[in-house]
Amino acid sequence: MPTYKAPLREYRFLLNELLDFSQYGDLPGFADAPADLVDAILEEAGKLTEEVLQPLNQIGDREGCKLENGVVTTPTGFKDAYKLLVDGGWPALVADTAYGGQGLPNALGVIFNEMVSSANMAFGMYPGLSHGAYSALSQHGTDEQKKKYLPKLVTGEWTGTMNLTEPHCGTDLGLLRSKAVPVGDGSYKISGQKIFISAGDHDLAENILHLVLARIEGAPQGVKGISLFLVPKYLVNEDGSLGNRNGVSVGSLEEKMGIHGNATCVLNYDEALGWLVGEEHKGLRAMFTMMNEARLGVGLQGLSQSEVAYQNAVTYALERLQGRSLTGPKAEDKPADPLIVHPDIRRMLLNAKSFNEGARALLVWTALHGDLSHRSNDEKTREFGDDMMSLLTPVLKGYFTDRGFAHAVDAQQVYGGHGYIDEWGMGQFVRDARIAMIYEGANGVQALDLVGRKLAQNGGRAVFAFFKAVDDFIAANKSNADLKPFLDPLAAARKDLEAATMWFMENALQNPDHAGAGSTPYMHHFGVTGRAFMWAMMAKVSLEKLAAQSEGDNAWYETKIKTGRFYMEHVVPETAMHLARIRHGADPVMAMGANEF
Amino acid sequence: MPTYKAPLREYRFLLNELLDFSQYGDLPGFADAPADLVDAILEEAGKLTEEVLQPLNQIGDREGCKLENGVVTTPTGFKDAYKLLVDGGWPALVADTAYGGQGLPNALGVIFNEMVSSANMAFGMYPGLSHGAYSALSQHGTDEQKKKYLPKLVTGEWTGTMNLTEPHCGTDLGLLRSKAVPVGDGSYKISGQKIFISAGDHDLAENILHLVLARIEGAPQGVKGISLFLVPKYLVNEDGSLGNRNGVSVGSLEEKMGIHGNATCVLNYDEALGWLVGEEHKGLRAMFTMMNEARLGVGLQGLSQSEVAYQNAVTYALERLQGRSLTGPKAEDKPADPLIVHPDIRRMLLNAKSFNEGARALLVWTALHGDLSHRSNDEKTREFGDDMMSLLTPVLKGYFTDRGFAHAVDAQQVYGGHGYIDEWGMGQFVRDARIAMIYEGANGVQALDLVGRKLAQNGGRAVFAFFKAVDDFIAANKSNADLKPFLDPLAAARKDLEAATMWFMENALQNPDHAGAGSTPYMHHFGVTGRAFMWAMMAKVSLEKLAAQSEGDNAWYETKIKTGRFYMEHVVPETAMHLARIRHGADPVMAMGANEF
Repeated sequence: MPTYKAPLREYRFLLNELLDFSQYGDLPGFADAPADLVDAILEEAGKLTEEVLQPLNQIGDREGCKLENGVVTTPTGFKDAYKLLVDGGWPALVADTAYGGQGLPNALGVIFNEMVSSANMAFGMYPGLSHGAYSALSQHGTDEQKKKYLPKLVTGEWTGTMNLTEPHCGTDLGLLRSKAVPVGDGSYKISGQKIFISAGDHDLAENILHLVLARIEGAPQGVKGISLFLVPKYLVNEDGSLGNRNGVSVGSLEEKMGIHGNATCVLNYDEALGWLVGEEHKGLRAMFTMMNEARLGVGLQGLSQSEVAYQNAVTYALERLQGRSLTGPKAEDKPADPLIVHPDIRRMLLNAKSFNEGARALLVWTALHGDLSHRSNDEKTREFGDDMMSLLTPVLKGYFTDRGFAHAVDAQQVYGGHGYIDEWGMGQFVRDARIAMIYEGANGVQALDLVGRKLAQNGGRAVFAFFKAVDDFIAANKSNADLKPFLDPLAAARKDLEAATMWFMENALQNPDHAGAGSTPYMHHFGVTGRAFMWAMMAKVSLEKLAAQSEGDNAWYETKIKTGRFYMEHVVPETAMHLARIRHGADPVMAMGANEF
Repeated sequence: MPTYKAPLREYRFLLNELLDFSQYGDLPGFADAPADLVDAILEEAGKLTEEVLQPLNQIGDREGCKLENGVVTTPTGFKDAYKLLVDGGWPALVADTAYGGQGLPNALGVIFNEMVSSANMAFGMYPGLSHGAYSALSQHGTDEQKKKYLPKLVTGEWTGTMNLTEPHCGTDLGLLRSKAVPVGDGSYKISGQKIFISAGDHDLAENILHLVLARIEGAPQGVKGISLFLVPKYLVNEDGSLGNRNGVSVGSLEEKMGIHGNATCVLNYDEALGWLVGEEHKGLRAMFTMMNEARLGVGLQGLSQSEVAYQNAVTYALERLQGRSLTGPKAEDKPADPLIVHPDIRRMLLNAKSFNEGARALLVWTALHGDLSHRSNDEKTREFGDDMMSLLTPVLKGYFTDRGFAHAVDAQQVYGGHGYIDEWGMGQFVRDARIAMIYEGANGVQALDLVGRKLAQNGGRAVFAFFKAVDDFIAANKSNADLKPFLDPLAAARKDLEAATMWFMENALQNPDHAGAGSTPYMHHFGVTGRAFMWAMMAKVSLEKLAAQSEGDNAWYETKIKTGRFYMEHVVPETAMHLARIRHGADPVMAMGANEF
């Protein structure tokens, strides 16, 4: 049976030592989160996820959700666990205080979400999607809508969903057919079929707020004719009480590779009453608010499965006796040495560990900059925060989920044959992690968003700001000889990344397929470089702590530095390969006729 | 519903054009396989696999095997399909004519096995393991054993299994506890528990021959006290008829991530009668005969899942309309362009296609050299054949299954959300392919076999013979300007591979962990270089065919060259990364204390 231990020491390091959240103590939200309170929150979140959510993870996988007589039932224990989540006030963590939220920075929100997702990814999607709906409504809804719906999302009494996909249209939303007919009183009748709706129906909450993309009768074709609607499962009376069931029903539950504990629904809308969110025909813009947030949430799912799979692989590698060390027996009193003596086992574990810690730093760093983009008093800081959030969202979604899956596969590999047997639970991490590479925009779409949109925005302002941040760090620390093993690979990765960026800028206008062909290598290149930046920063702090000898925690910092060294030496060399692939351009992939595949 | 089309044109290219099997027409077995007969065999195999085995693949996955009252039932249709296989004489294809086999080269056997495995991997394991048992018995059994058992394996009336693993011992066979007590009449009573026994029991054949590793009472500890026994499910009378049920029973069926159609058994041996195969205490050597063959069979499973997943991804990419080409609409009469217009979709498809074709060439090339090692009249040819077979077996097992899995994942990715839904069948390819990285020696064990044993054997004779073969090819073709885009990357990959090899030779004696730390990067490096060699050879032949303009098939050769160009430009650049990782040696992975993970 797999276990999970929330990496609280890692979080404290990021919040208090690496990013020093205390420096933002005068900003809204941050002011309400002094270190001791945050510490208490992390402790409680650790308990909830380790003791309540994780033990339900395999149960959810085995039982799945059931649809009987139009009613969806979640796996044993999910309902009680959700009640504990609500009773603990967790859905309110980063929501606006105006609607009952605690208003804490989203950087804390992503940390909480990582824990939930590590413990039980399928469960975490129920509250996770609610928060996306909350964000879309709070940014694009009318005051009346906000007042009516947001408080219930914030308590978690109601949940939310995103309804984009239809059978014939996934990425290409311009093709969507769901229709909205004005009733005349400001409401619309929504009809159509939506598929792949995560948390689309369930028994955890008394109401569900569906955010649905549809086309108002007579609207233009394509993406410019799409509007966003709020369609509650139960209509809500003026006094906030629940009214009649709305015209939305569950057609079926999808049988899928993983996340069995989450109800992935086909939803049929049959003249369901809905209300416009944001402007007519500008639904995509509103939905993108939700999607961008969801993308960060999916990126952390990749990290979360790598983390929990890694933890269990370490446990197994320490316990399982198999073979002898290449340099002679290490556990002479035992019939064999533990797996951990084998360099190739360590290679797999260190790949995962250096990913988990570097990716987590990049996640929290990015979320912090997202917070600063709203909350800082300084315009430059807000702009930089906005740029980093915008630039790195596709990287965190695409790169984290590709790598998170790969590391879950490696962790399963550490178990040998037992990794393939359901009982041990390692296959579930792999199967669950797999979806994160696909939904909320397949990773190829993320790569194209990065290369085709984010690089060019504002004349490349964001990517050059990223390079400058790296350069400033290198320049400020270049006299630090102990940091040289980190700064040199970081500089090399950054140089290759700039070369790749310039190659796109010089070639992609003339032929956009040059951008398309190199987009995934570039996204990975960016992910590697972003992690290298984080590892260099983490090494610097760790070296300082070691020099100060004040923490009584020297071994912890030494491990951090060793992990970072592995990253620099084993992972960073891949950037040259990405650059070589990018520079070959479109020809190698576009030369083939469609009939030649 | 997924489909499968046997790549017959590819096989013909390999057999008749690339490797020119007609040149071996005077050798045993080859003489019985003129091109027109081989062609007829391939056609029939294509029909069997496309029309009979493939339609059962999803059924097998859904139903799995059942154990009721000690009896294992295979999924619907498997029994009839197995009967067709037997009636068609397929198990006899490459078996010795002395026992009723057709005696054809194993190079044809691996081609047949690839088709079977692409169509239905779980099904293919039933006859696949029989052939391993056949090889172990035919090489290590007594004449009496061979006469008694081999003909039934050759017809397929009986099947075989390999019994190595016990709950506490997988890779480390020295730990095994199963016991053999001499009865006094030459037989032994075998007791113990074996786990993960593929095709361990089923209803396809009337008898099963278990080849079981056990320790004779009083034998030395460790691997030097292990013997191999033949333990039939039903005892066999002198006249060849079946006698009593032997003392082996199915404890349970494993619930696993994939290959649900194959019965993975816990087998309990309770004083089951067994007969020694080969010498006392030398069971590992006999088992390795079987394992080496099984490893080639597992390597081709990796290829097989990549091939079938690729085929289905192409179908979807041609049909699914989603988005518009970055360079403007290509299917203006349709609401969107097919996925195939997108460079990133093509990148994934070409990665798989260039793997499938290059890996298949390397598989058949290696199997051919295995055949020549037994059948050639020339001592040098036999030695080279033996060297290539020995050197490349771990590469084909480890590299092919790592890559095959990765390409199946990519093929699933092409489907977007539908790839995650069971109905579409893409997840099954991924789940089935996953086991191939684990069983018959986890891929880390293959990498160590390559670096720790195969490189050093006979003073490095095999690896230097491989380099010489590459060098000879480059030297013989260096004036061919059209081939330069293939020869230059091949030379670069080979140069890096030699540098990596020399690094091991210079450093691994002093610290064997240097070999362990770089073993997986080296195995991948070898796989990339081996494929590069095959692609250069395939390009040369294709260029010749194009120059001759005689085949009426020019488009086919042009596609071959384009695919090879993609491989050289997109895949080969990874060798520099592997070399960099190898050269960092053991320190980055061994610096960590076991408690630091």
